[in-house]
Amino acid sequence: MLVVLERTATSEQVEAVCAEVRKMGLTPHALPGAQRTVVGITGNLGMVNSGRLETMPGVIEIIHVTQPFKLVSREFRREDTVIPVGPPGSKVEIGGKKVCVLAGPCAVESREQAFAIAERVKAAGAEIFRGGAFKPRTSPYSFQGLGEEGLKILALVREKFGLLVVTEAIDSESLNLVEEYADIIQIGARNMQNFSLLKQAGKAEKPVLLKRGMSATLQELLMAAEYIVSEGNPNVILCERGVRTFADHTRNTLDLSAIPFVERTSHLPIIADPSHGTGRREKVLPMSRAAVAAGADGLLIEVHHKPDEALSDGPESIYPEQFNILMKEISGIAKVIGREV
Amino acid sequence: MLVVLERTATSEQVEAVCAEVRKMGLTPHALPGAQRTVVGITGNLGMVNSGRLETMPGVIEIIHVTQPFKLVSREFRREDTVIPVGPPGSKVEIGGKKVCVLAGPCAVESREQAFAIAERVKAAGAEIFRGGAFKPRTSPYSFQGLGEEGLKILALVREKFGLLVVTEAIDSESLNLVEEYADIIQIGARNMQNFSLLKQAGKAEKPVLLKRGMSATLQELLMAAEYIVSEGNPNVILCERGVRTFADHTRNTLDLSAIPFVERTSHLPIIADPSHGTGRREKVLPMSRAAVAAGADGLLIEVHHKPDEALSDGPESIYPEQFNILMKEISGIAKVIGREV
Amino acid sequence: MLVVLERTATSEQVEAVCAEVRKMGLTPHALPGAQRTVVGITGNLGMVNSGRLETMPGVIEIIHVTQPFKLVSREFRREDTVIPVGPPGSKVEIGGKKVCVLAGPCAVESREQAFAIAERVKAAGAEIFRGGAFKPRTSPYSFQGLGEEGLKILALVREKFGLLVVTEAIDSESLNLVEEYADIIQIGARNMQNFSLLKQAGKAEKPVLLKRGMSATLQELLMAAEYIVSEGNPNVILCERGVRTFADHTRNTLDLSAIPFVERTSHLPIIADPSHGTGRREKVLPMSRAAVAAGADGLLIEVHHKPDEALSDGPESIYPEQFNILMKEISGIAKVIGREV
Amino acid sequence: MLVVLERTATSEQVEAVCAEVRKMGLTPHALPGAQRTVVGITGNLGMVNSGRLETMPGVIEIIHVTQPFKLVSREFRREDTVIPVGPPGSKVEIGGKKVCVLAGPCAVESREQAFAIAERVKAAGAEIFRGGAFKPRTSPYSFQGLGEEGLKILALVREKFGLLVVTEAIDSESLNLVEEYADIIQIGARNMQNFSLLKQAGKAEKPVLLKRGMSATLQELLMAAEYIVSEGNPNVILCERGVRTFADHTRNTLDLSAIPFVERTSHLPIIADPSHGTGRREKVLPMSRAAVAAGADGLLIEVHHKPDEALSDGPESIYPEQFNILMKEISGIAKVIGREV
Repeated sequence: MLVVLERTATSEQVEAVCAEVRKMGLTPHALPGAQRTVVGITGNLGMVNSGRLETMPGVIEIIHVTQPFKLVSREFRREDTVIPVGPPGSKVEIGGKKVCVLAGPCAVESREQAFAIAERVKAAGAEIFRGGAFKPRTSPYSFQGLGEEGLKILALVREKFGLLVVTEAIDSESLNLVEEYADIIQIGARNMQNFSLLKQAGKAEKPVLLKRGMSATLQELLMAAEYIVSEGNPNVILCERGVRTFADHTRNTLDLSAIPFVERTSHLPIIADPSHGTGRREKVLPMSRAAVAAGADGLLIEVHHKPDEALSDGPESIYPEQFNILMKEISGIAKVIGREV
Repeated sequence: MLVVLERTATSEQVEAVCAEVRKMGLTPHALPGAQRTVVGITGNLGMVNSGRLETMPGVIEIIHVTQPFKLVSREFRREDTVIPVGPPGSKVEIGGKKVCVLAGPCAVESREQAFAIAERVKAAGAEIFRGGAFKPRTSPYSFQGLGEEGLKILALVREKFGLLVVTEAIDSESLNLVEEYADIIQIGARNMQNFSLLKQAGKAEKPVLLKRGMSATLQELLMAAEYIVSEGNPNVILCERGVRTFADHTRNTLDLSAIPFVERTSHLPIIADPSHGTGRREKVLPMSRAAVAAGADGLLIEVHHKPDEALSDGPESIYPEQFNILMKEISGIAKVIGREV
Repeated sequence: MLVVLERTATSEQVEAVCAEVRKMGLTPHALPGAQRTVVGITGNLGMVNSGRLETMPGVIEIIHVTQPFKLVSREFRREDTVIPVGPPGSKVEIGGKKVCVLAGPCAVESREQAFAIAERVKAAGAEIFRGGAFKPRTSPYSFQGLGEEGLKILALVREKFGLLVVTEAIDSESLNLVEEYADIIQIGARNMQNFSLLKQAGKAEKPVLLKRGMSATLQELLMAAEYIVSEGNPNVILCERGVRTFADHTRNTLDLSAIPFVERTSHLPIIADPSHGTGRREKVLPMSRAAVAAGADGLLIEVHHKPDEALSDGPESIYPEQFNILMKEISGIAKVIGREV
Repeated sequence: MLVVLERTATSEQVEAVCAEVRKMGLTPHALPGAQRTVVGITGNLGMVNSGRLETMPGVIEIIHVTQPFKLVSREFRREDTVIPVGPPGSKVEIGGKKVCVLAGPCAVESREQAFAIAERVKAAGAEIFRGGAFKPRTSPYSFQGLGEEGLKILALVREKFGLLVVTEAIDSESLNLVEEYADIIQIGARNMQNFSLLKQAGKAEKPVLLKRGMSATLQELLMAAEYIVSEGNPNVILCERGVRTFADHTRNTLDLSAIPFVERTSHLPIIADPSHGTGRREKVLPMSRAAVAAGADGLLIEVHHKPDEALSDGPESIYPEQFNILMKEISGIAKVIGREV
């Protein structure tokens, strides 16, 4: 940690800061500069509580050098984390050479709907079926999902089509149910800092798909993952799904640079969600290609056989025929960078 | 609702849209313009599900005219909602002529700390004591609050100093406890769209202080309030606490224009939190004055008698002496606009 | 245009709005809805000045349906604009099948530097050399560019290496010089709404590379292009270079969804600048791949043979060896979507 | 400056960084921490060019401690800068005890309009008349201002009503004219980083009103002021006019915390523009009160006697009667904080 003092700080003020640091059992190192004096601190094992120093006379700023996350950092573990998905014997994994595609409707609406879509995405090459049973909706008057009934339909999809299943948990009760029925537990953007839910997910025995919050920095995303990992669940898949900005031509701004950043900073895999990330059907295909080209470990795609009749997020769902083209195009792109779909 | 078609839309495409509207049991009104044709829709009672229309050939855009919130809107109820706080006989209320001040530490740390601060804020004129027992923290390694022990201290504060008490609930269990011990249940910014928690708060019998999410629009804030009110709890106090922007001179950007907007759009009261809203002690005083000048119904202020030793948010807590000045200054400002503190 | 009235608007208020519309020589169409009355307006040739209507009693909102830009819109011209660059006989163009690569240093520093870099980017396949002679710098104390001396060096680069040349103009004088020496005139992000400069560029006889402003919507970007085109210069190349958001892991947030949006909304070509768009060398390569995968018509890349010694933007410049890899990778990606590099 | 190395950096890497620093003629100070090694640098007179260090093996981050602005900083000059406005003998000043009000229409439309408004704002207590003669407009098809004809009308207003005059310059030519006719030269938000214009304003002999750019940090605003002051013009008035965020209930988000920040960081005065800052008439009054309560040295207010007929920005202009109330209310608020209007 570093304590920055103002240009006019007296030597008494610098000494008082040093004395305070010594009182904390740490070692101060005063570095007088042309315009500022900085006091470096060594001897700490983790982050130092800076409160007291921050308000001493002459002090302008405290700079933390130590990263706040540990277990999820690339410094802690050099090799990529490859996450096995599904029951023993399943060969599906996320974070390895293969780009994993998770596709399906925004919400599970009925067995017929789920089956119709599952058949199409399976045929096109998806490995995991997505579909919401518990839907977090901005309005209390919107369709909130089928609940456990939806989970049962997902279980049937797995059985009938050999697809693995991911679905969102929105609170303690639904998390227990999702852990029972699904292969991956999804934590949505609105719950990225629902720390009680993160801790519970950290005790679950299924991998967790953690979506970036609407205005979360990547440090906050990694800290949210740290909550899960520090509770004992090492299998966290991060997901870039767009952030909120002033830009109004898309529902969110898909921040694909998160992919190379996470790859460098953390050993966890990261996938992209171009459907929520843009909110517009016609942008899903180009942004899916872009995400794979940027190095994403997977894609989360909304597909609906009748998007005009979808109970939620119809305008961002693509048609099965578009999904076929998508799979072909990303397959070509994956090869260019030494991966496969 | 309005359906906008592109300049080159054919009359067949316009007619197809009109036919679809009729199929929905509603009435279309085609308005051919110089550059666009618009189809207006009447006959609907609430918001129309636009999915199907949005994807018809020639359609560029759907414009919703009906506001999505109802119970919390000024159109639904013209008079201000004035919320009584505390047990029967308490004269404290939020949303009336008096600007209500809620003050105390970020986190309850001990009985001594709470009492020391409570004594000072009571003497200066605060009516409600704030203090966190359950703390949502970005890092799993940070102090997470005293839990129920903290709530018991708050109950002692109420008894000893005659202050009412507000504290945050972060999940289902803590909400039950907070409802039992406190006079107001706080829902924090990170949980503004934790819809399960909102619904539970809607069934509680205490008023709810609902903070704006870090990147929530005011429509989303009002929809979150609608979740609570539609479950049966009409007593929601909104709180502007700053939003996340590119600006880096404060921790958040305090958006005071939310106050006149809410006043015009909703009958619910709105208060401001200049402590979290700026994250900097030296800005709390000017921004408190500004909030009251803008018409806030109350202020939520972090006060600590030893901020350098605070276990959380020390740098934004003001000293009791600064709080005295704050109370005097906002009192003067309140008078200018026909209110009082 | 549409005028929205509040739920409680009286029929007199609706009639007053209609009367006002008639006074403007236009035709009002009142559409009473469940919650709102909307008055649609027809008969206008362009955008209607809404000022008077906006403030009439009962009116809540005015909604403009007509797009404000014309000449640059896809509706105005269905075919892609393909822009020829360079003197007669040059075969370089932007907006056609080929993805055009513009590469070179942030700033021209010396003949030696420019030649060393030009040789490398030419060999790797770049068609256009970039390099700043007039540098807009946040600090008055930073290197401001070599001025006309830099332009002369660019002219030598063109002569010696057969590369075309793009460089930035920052005011009226420099624009005249840039038009004389360069093949493309660049207008930087900070000048995207310097309307005097845009008008002057609209009278120039060279193509203009127009960068998106740091917080410009795409509508504003297209309006800025409209300024240039409406003055008589049809050859505008748009450039996505990242926007300013709260995200702090990159210098800007590269908004690649701008590419499919522009492709759909305008006939003008759009290229991407992953160097400024991320500000980090290690992200230039993945984001270049992503931009081409999203459909960009070109890339603007900073390359420096000794980035550690660069006078500006060293940390975002890539090494010539990295540029070789970049060219190979984007070439593979371009083929997947039916283009070439 | 500080160089941060990663946890796994070898002692050779640390030594290489130190050697490089010594080669720059500066002194390195290695501080090994628990997780990171930091190398502090002393001996520099201004900001160090970090390019070379940033890319050395093991280096993660460079932290600049020295502020980039000098002449405008509070450290450079402790006392407030009070700026005299108007010809010798004028008693109007900005930055002193008195809160200065600058009011008038968005654009000068005619002598009649200007006189009608000037009469009203003068009577209510405004000291300076605002009105645009050169208007930067998003669309090339919008009213662009009366040009020099508008400046002549402003000169007549000064003569007839004894008001001083401020108006915007948008390029080199208009700046010369504005300097000739007006008492304050305004540089608008879109030109805050038009460095050629800033330099020219730095040579002018009239004070400059510099508006914050739409997405400018306060450091960038102060650097823009540094451009003007370093050219020889010490009289710069800063202006907070709202920044662009995701919030959609106002045209911009008025960031009033800029006021206490600037007061602490710079000796220059700062005023607020609640008209552009909100874009909505009904928010101008509460936000004007808030700005004065936050400590603004002045207000820039759009007033129009017939806003429904205004050629630009009608919906944000207030009526003269509202302006009367505004003057009374801010006068009361100014007294509370020891100032006057």
